Amino acid sequence: MIPKGFRFAAAEAAVKAPGRLDLGLIACDRPAAAAGVFTRNRVVAAPVVVCRERVAAGRARAVLVNAGNANACTGPQGLDAARRTSARVADLLGVPPDAVLPCSTGVIGLPLPVDRIAAAAPALVDGLGDDPEPFARSILTTDTVPKQSARTVTAAGRQARVLGVAKGAGMIRPDLATMLGFVVTDAPVAAADLDAVLRAACDRTFNRITVDGDTSTNDTVLALASGAAGGPPVSGPDLAAVADAVEAVCRDLARAIVADAEGAGKVVDVRVVGAADDAAALRVARTVAESPLVKTALHGEDPNWGRIAAAVGRSGAYAGGPFDIEIGGVAVVRDGLGLGEEAEARAHRVMQAGAYEVRIVLAEGEGRAVVTTCDLSAEYVRINADYRS
Amino acid sequence: MIPKGFRFAAAEAAVKAPGRLDLGLIACDRPAAAAGVFTRNRVVAAPVVVCRERVAAGRARAVLVNAGNANACTGPQGLDAARRTSARVADLLGVPPDAVLPCSTGVIGLPLPVDRIAAAAPALVDGLGDDPEPFARSILTTDTVPKQSARTVTAAGRQARVLGVAKGAGMIRPDLATMLGFVVTDAPVAAADLDAVLRAACDRTFNRITVDGDTSTNDTVLALASGAAGGPPVSGPDLAAVADAVEAVCRDLARAIVADAEGAGKVVDVRVVGAADDAAALRVARTVAESPLVKTALHGEDPNWGRIAAAVGRSGAYAGGPFDIEIGGVAVVRDGLGLGEEAEARAHRVMQAGAYEVRIVLAEGEGRAVVTTCDLSAEYVRINADYRS
Repeated sequence: MIPKGFRFAAAEAAVKAPGRLDLGLIACDRPAAAAGVFTRNRVVAAPVVVCRERVAAGRARAVLVNAGNANACTGPQGLDAARRTSARVADLLGVPPDAVLPCSTGVIGLPLPVDRIAAAAPALVDGLGDDPEPFARSILTTDTVPKQSARTVTAAGRQARVLGVAKGAGMIRPDLATMLGFVVTDAPVAAADLDAVLRAACDRTFNRITVDGDTSTNDTVLALASGAAGGPPVSGPDLAAVADAVEAVCRDLARAIVADAEGAGKVVDVRVVGAADDAAALRVARTVAESPLVKTALHGEDPNWGRIAAAVGRSGAYAGGPFDIEIGGVAVVRDGLGLGEEAEARAHRVMQAGAYEVRIVLAEGEGRAVVTTCDLSAEYVRINADYRS
Repeated sequence: MIPKGFRFAAAEAAVKAPGRLDLGLIACDRPAAAAGVFTRNRVVAAPVVVCRERVAAGRARAVLVNAGNANACTGPQGLDAARRTSARVADLLGVPPDAVLPCSTGVIGLPLPVDRIAAAAPALVDGLGDDPEPFARSILTTDTVPKQSARTVTAAGRQARVLGVAKGAGMIRPDLATMLGFVVTDAPVAAADLDAVLRAACDRTFNRITVDGDTSTNDTVLALASGAAGGPPVSGPDLAAVADAVEAVCRDLARAIVADAEGAGKVVDVRVVGAADDAAALRVARTVAESPLVKTALHGEDPNWGRIAAAVGRSGAYAGGPFDIEIGGVAVVRDGLGLGEEAEARAHRVMQAGAYEVRIVLAEGEGRAVVTTCDLSAEYVRINADYRS
């Protein structure tokens, strides 16, 4: 069920090769509370600059997304392109230009085809409807499947809905943001609360996944709350219920991004417990989750715990004490020593599954963290060596 | 020409599959000054623990190396194995047990086959001779070629020789050390000076290469100086001349490791100039050199400078000012903006070469650094997904 007040559309603007959806729109029938988190990359795409500026107002009416061109490293012309394309859509929607939030994803460094996007805008706006699926398809690049998640939440005695849509399959190591993600809800949430809810959710979901350790120039997650479910802005336990639903939606989308990672076939949670503190646990988990040698072993279904141990050792957040390693619930290392071939044979069988957990138990404190990663395949290399050709 | 005082040998000990050289020995006919640098990984292999302890004396008579088994994560048994195998060789050489420096490389977590190594020791010692080539072959794992480099240097009016041998093709992102490297010289160098010379050389060579960002548990570089060239210990400009020769040998070996990197076909110097300081430049260069997306683009011969810009942006050492990028001398970005298809077509042609430079010019200070990297190929994945099977 779609959050009330929102409609969705997609169109072909020939930003990608002709014949493919590459322009998407989410529109709200009233001013929605708006919040956003953006890439921490210091090379920032033009739409991120414009979007961040506009989100600061805490209100928005629409999100305009193109795929196939990142509009990054495009200078003042790129800023102008982001403003002109969103102004065209704002005009058609009858809303102020700065009520449209622009997002782009795709190749870095090419001029955005403003004229083609402007030409496709009327069909885009005419196509607004209740089905988010075409929108979810229009924002994809190397993704193989669209990514949606929804929750229903009861807050202040009224039912509200939360819908999330995301794209992302490579250049994924979000830093307080991810590729593109959009969360809309009809719960009545004040802009400042929505901002806090979104930041907390992103920190626990999109920021705990990695595909290749590369952070995009365009990472953006936006949240819009229409309030169309009715009632005054939620607070206290009601706000917490909405926050839980937003986090659940973001977690689904984050896992969907890892599951659709370029060339990958495994979704692996790297869980670290017993680190000095949570920050240390996160650093250990990230180092393991990003190690190319660990990721190729995941691909080969090889319980090569020596590579996991080596990554823990170089993480800079491990003091050198005893450690245990379990793979999919099978103990393969106890007190830093391997448990032998039989244990590894059992772990190998578990690793044939599409999803499992690698658990690393340190003895240095109470710190805990999980980072979700994928395997590294020859297909990832093929996709990225050929991406632009 | 071999540094005077040193002899070399290799043997088959069935640590690897039978029929392959996997045991190597360097012996000096007199106590040699000794220095070593070791992995900073907090998970440290047993031979590193023993070797580090023995090198502290500043003197050694031999280096014993096995390939195929890292003797890492093997606990007290592993320490005992390193001591027993080196004691056996010391006995045959007629030198004190702690004058033999043990090194291991290979799979982590398996018990070292002490008996097989001890059984091969007499043939190993009997085989000592002037040719370092069998030794250079015996220490390889996934390497495809042995790696040697030599220089002649005149110090204090006498000619001295420097010979280096190394192995390494994966798990390469040395942190003040590298995989295994051995430098022997007949120049008369005091142990403390040899230590300083080796540290400086490693920092400028082995520590400026990356294959996959993974640091081994066994990284070790040892230097032995026999003094057999004659004369008193060198100092001042003579010591500097020896240091230059050691650094040149280490640089050759470091480049040879990158050139032989698992599945790689390109050697690319990532040079950063104009960073805030040298540390910032190194951080930017490392981030670019380790980016899987940059490395797959190098593999695809794709001048995808957007990925280079994105890596600069997420490095944490770039403040956000204008930047230029050149690939193999071809300018592709000026002031943060792409120079267009023609420039990229020219860069693509340059990238078909086996070696070239990516130059990143920032405008934030005088910091400079070079990190040498390789491309990331589907073959790297295949090698590492299959390594143990």
